[in-house]
Amino acid sequence: MRRIYLDYNSTTPLHPGVLEEMMPFFDTKFGNPSSLHFFGRETAAALDLSRCRAGKLIGADVDEIIFTSGGTESNNLALAGIARRLKAARNHIITTSIEHSSVYDQCVRLESEGFKVTYLPVTRQGEISLNDLERAVTEQTALVSLILSNNETGTIMNTGGVREIARKAGALLHYDAVQAVGKIPVDVIELGADLLSFSGHKIYGPKGSGVLFLRRGVALQSVFIGGEQENARRSGTHNVPAIVGLGKACELAGAELDEYGRHCANLRDRLQSGILKIPDAIINGCLDRRIPNTLNASFPGHYGSSLAVKLDLAGIAVSTGSACSAGRNEESRVLKNMGLSSRELLGALRFSVGRHTTEKEIDYTVQKLAEIVSAENSIGKKLNIVNLDKL
Amino acid sequence: MRRIYLDYNSTTPLHPGVLEEMMPFFDTKFGNPSSLHFFGRETAAALDLSRCRAGKLIGADVDEIIFTSGGTESNNLALAGIARRLKAARNHIITTSIEHSSVYDQCVRLESEGFKVTYLPVTRQGEISLNDLERAVTEQTALVSLILSNNETGTIMNTGGVREIARKAGALLHYDAVQAVGKIPVDVIELGADLLSFSGHKIYGPKGSGVLFLRRGVALQSVFIGGEQENARRSGTHNVPAIVGLGKACELAGAELDEYGRHCANLRDRLQSGILKIPDAIINGCLDRRIPNTLNASFPGHYGSSLAVKLDLAGIAVSTGSACSAGRNEESRVLKNMGLSSRELLGALRFSVGRHTTEKEIDYTVQKLAEIVSAENSIGKKLNIVNLDKL
Repeated sequence: MRRIYLDYNSTTPLHPGVLEEMMPFFDTKFGNPSSLHFFGRETAAALDLSRCRAGKLIGADVDEIIFTSGGTESNNLALAGIARRLKAARNHIITTSIEHSSVYDQCVRLESEGFKVTYLPVTRQGEISLNDLERAVTEQTALVSLILSNNETGTIMNTGGVREIARKAGALLHYDAVQAVGKIPVDVIELGADLLSFSGHKIYGPKGSGVLFLRRGVALQSVFIGGEQENARRSGTHNVPAIVGLGKACELAGAELDEYGRHCANLRDRLQSGILKIPDAIINGCLDRRIPNTLNASFPGHYGSSLAVKLDLAGIAVSTGSACSAGRNEESRVLKNMGLSSRELLGALRFSVGRHTTEKEIDYTVQKLAEIVSAENSIGKKLNIVNLDKL
Repeated sequence: MRRIYLDYNSTTPLHPGVLEEMMPFFDTKFGNPSSLHFFGRETAAALDLSRCRAGKLIGADVDEIIFTSGGTESNNLALAGIARRLKAARNHIITTSIEHSSVYDQCVRLESEGFKVTYLPVTRQGEISLNDLERAVTEQTALVSLILSNNETGTIMNTGGVREIARKAGALLHYDAVQAVGKIPVDVIELGADLLSFSGHKIYGPKGSGVLFLRRGVALQSVFIGGEQENARRSGTHNVPAIVGLGKACELAGAELDEYGRHCANLRDRLQSGILKIPDAIINGCLDRRIPNTLNASFPGHYGSSLAVKLDLAGIAVSTGSACSAGRNEESRVLKNMGLSSRELLGALRFSVGRHTTEKEIDYTVQKLAEIVSAENSIGKKLNIVNLDKL
């Protein structure tokens, strides 16, 4: 079966250029970069290059890049690292109700450690209110952590004014940019970010690679402890091939950003047009402030999980939300907190296009989806709709 | 320059069979195993196979294997995960003074969180005393954590009787087996281990891969939180290629264990004979209870770091201790706590042979080392010896 992959927000295949760059580091240039001998110096130099490339993509300097094992580690480290470091002085964190679980669940855990957390509400478009933020921030606020572009809806956060509010109270500012980097321009200076997380495998780089940008002069308590790699901010033997691949992926993402954005937006818009022709279908999130590759649509009265399974049987891979929550079989916290009704959020599907997506694939997907929705409408799916209406 | 690598304890190149197994998972079978669609199921199945292979190598069941980003994460997770989980009931940890920094430094951190830690002393041979252990263990002891084979000396811990003492007090037992797995038979049942850590890149598997064995029924507090991967014990998108490679490396390590041990022991013993012909050279650690590939020797009156640099210039890569501490330029805590004199521990070198090491390389290394030591002896190095004697 010819398969269509429309789940690029979940993960991406390696860019051929990335894999090529990684290959020598598996068995030839295999030294531990912490070693002082030739084999170590050779790979240490490769780390330096990756640090430059990663820094360049987001406007950071090389000493502000911490390599991690991925987006979850970067987000966990940002939140726990700052909170635990500053606990004696500041014990309050502000975030939103639509964060990825690696931020949201970490905040819940920090509450159990004695921190106070404010979860800002968002509008149906995924916007926070600056007034809410201003009211929430105090001299006790250690960190404001916002998702820069939402993983489920693609909505880009309204960041204007955020840095000023955080700064005024002396709070640090973290962006979870896992779904933004490589899709839209991301610049830590422009954002006024003190910390920013992103991941390799979302940008055609390797799984097991991530970055936490930490502004020079900002200290955190490491999560991993031991060998003092990454200036004692992240211990553990460097995953050299992954870091090399991440660096190359950053370089390519920067070079191809505009073209990639146009390619994705064209396909996403084509998909959106097709979906909006399906009766009752709606698009979730903000239409004009959105990363170019992502589309979240609801088919009220249908189960997104049922539609996803039927699409999968037709060879089309989409998701109902975050892959990190795929096994949980719960309502989407993100969509719920954006104010969707139960019918809307149970009927939600996330489509995310990417490098290898074609117009033909989009057209086939729309056709199949319309058939599946129509078939469910006509054969007894009404039963579920009745049930759902009671929710 | 033809280079000789004698630092296999620091890291290893990928086994060709491992790389071959990993390749499809970079760009073809690239799905996120948390995804429910075909692309996800395909890689989820690959994780299952790896889990079987990793379990088989250490006598564990598949649900007892937690995949991590490496040995440091596994050790950190074992210590912090058990300690923080049991804190209310038991706030005492027992370990040794010769642990790898990922255990030792984690213990120091846990002390700052309110835990009591006993660091058992060891003999010159790296042995703990069962009497010491018995005296240290109480009803407050949450965990006993021992390094199964020491990364610097290769000495294998005297484990006999340990499980019984731990069990009697209801304490859990963790082994840091990073330098043992793949070199000697390691069986969690025989050891009576509740937790056991090992790493992929020490056994010709990928960097960025590790395992924490956690006995069924034992709970810990995860370090990473978010997507609930690995049964919520380790969140974060699975590093599929690395896990696939780790699994294959485990399979190969198991199949080749005897042959690999003989190959390494033969070379190590040849190296040892050669080194013992160098005046004043001594071998550190226990000679008869030692992993087959490791040799730690001291050249009293010389600086190990100086010898290592000169060997490096001759194309021979050795280390003065743990790569994880290579940048620190300190005395080896491990050797110091084994009771070596300052002259002995400053003059220490670690040699670790491996798959690609040849007798010719060993002979060349001995020859070069003898030349370097002799040259230092004859040209003014005496000055340092005088200084060192005052220490």
